Amino acid sequence: MPSALSRGVANVAERAQLPPSLAISTVIFALRPGHEGCPTLWMPLVRRVREPFRGQWALPGGPLTAAESLEDAARRNLAETTGLAPAYIEQLYAFGGLRRAHRDEVGAQRVVSIVYWALVRADETALAGQTGLAGEQENVAWHPADPAHGGPGTLAFDHREIVDYALWRLRSKIEYAQVAYHLLGEMFTLAQLREVHEAVLGRSLDPANFRRQLKGTPHLEATDHYLEGGRHRPPRLYRYTGPRSL
Amino acid sequence: MPSALSRGVANVAERAQLPPSLAISTVIFALRPGHEGCPTLWMPLVRRVREPFRGQWALPGGPLTAAESLEDAARRNLAETTGLAPAYIEQLYAFGGLRRAHRDEVGAQRVVSIVYWALVRADETALAGQTGLAGEQENVAWHPADPAHGGPGTLAFDHREIVDYALWRLRSKIEYAQVAYHLLGEMFTLAQLREVHEAVLGRSLDPANFRRQLKGTPHLEATDHYLEGGRHRPPRLYRYTGPRSL
Repeated sequence: MPSALSRGVANVAERAQLPPSLAISTVIFALRPGHEGCPTLWMPLVRRVREPFRGQWALPGGPLTAAESLEDAARRNLAETTGLAPAYIEQLYAFGGLRRAHRDEVGAQRVVSIVYWALVRADETALAGQTGLAGEQENVAWHPADPAHGGPGTLAFDHREIVDYALWRLRSKIEYAQVAYHLLGEMFTLAQLREVHEAVLGRSLDPANFRRQLKGTPHLEATDHYLEGGRHRPPRLYRYTGPRSL
Repeated sequence: MPSALSRGVANVAERAQLPPSLAISTVIFALRPGHEGCPTLWMPLVRRVREPFRGQWALPGGPLTAAESLEDAARRNLAETTGLAPAYIEQLYAFGGLRRAHRDEVGAQRVVSIVYWALVRADETALAGQTGLAGEQENVAWHPADPAHGGPGTLAFDHREIVDYALWRLRSKIEYAQVAYHLLGEMFTLAQLREVHEAVLGRSLDPANFRRQLKGTPHLEATDHYLEGGRHRPPRLYRYTGPRSL
């Protein structure tokens, strides 16, 4: 939404001198089958229907209005564009590098994006469509997050860099049991935990080595529950006991 | 700095409807002797010379201009208001809660603050003054960060809450060896590391217990160097080997 000034008063040269405007975007990761059938990290994207970057995929987002907090704006923009309503959402980073403006229209008003992120369970990944405007379905879709797994190599604005930063955070700063808790729910098997590692790292791991390395992992606790199913020896369920914040 | 619109066109009611404006603030922590002589966390504050909150202490900060990145704006505002130039500065959080506006002037334009933070060594803590404008000295000063150690209980805007959030981050999410690295330099003794713990936690620790708990601390490595000085048994120096990011 352009500000009153950029809409009405300013020409191109004046717009570039305006105070930066603010947008709120969201990076949502979920575990879904990848192109080889293995669980992979996916994210919802929205196709731009106007310039700049018309036709390209972008992160769900929009403006911050006067009457809402940053997190409320993130949730509202996400719900309006995708229909998603994650239980838990957190601030990732504020992006406002100068290159952002240069990759936009020439002389466009600078935009600073405050980005929120969330990890959601597969049962939370239904996108809006039926309830949306006509034609909205084909403009909102899940994509693999990593270009190495079939994700889009380019996105509108600097959104590719923002997603890469979110992937880096996921890979470097967060406990895998915590990621599993967010992506899978309260309880999960060690095989599911390994699949989360593989999805985040983007490569397969040896199951025996993986189980050995899990010894002493903080905040991972065996429960007295077992996964129900048709197997003669149902696997034990584990629980994440650490902090929820990403 | 008010935007062109808030300066010229808008009345109070219109200003409250403007898109939020952006400010960049900085929280800088350094270790300095506290009111009981023990090392304590201090931060530089700037006294406001105009309304709102005239006469109250505030975090160093200012506007984001069109030609600079968020970090460059943080560094420039910090240097202009205090003369400080930390080697390493990092984004802390973007604050934009609705309560911010209500604690400002009635109907004021909403301000979202992107806050950067840094931990600096004592030899980096000289404030501007001689080079600043006349009268600037008495309006820039170091204060204890925590009200429990003599710090100001109230600050302009929501800056007290921002500092409390930074203290919480320091206490909960960061390794103490990393804090010591930033506050003390490349190498430090275990006694200095304990003083850092005590300054961050705000309470004294038993030296023998502390040494026992340090066993197995990640990213803490004994060096072959010893602190030079007059003692007959100079203490060994340690090094932090983990990531530098806060």
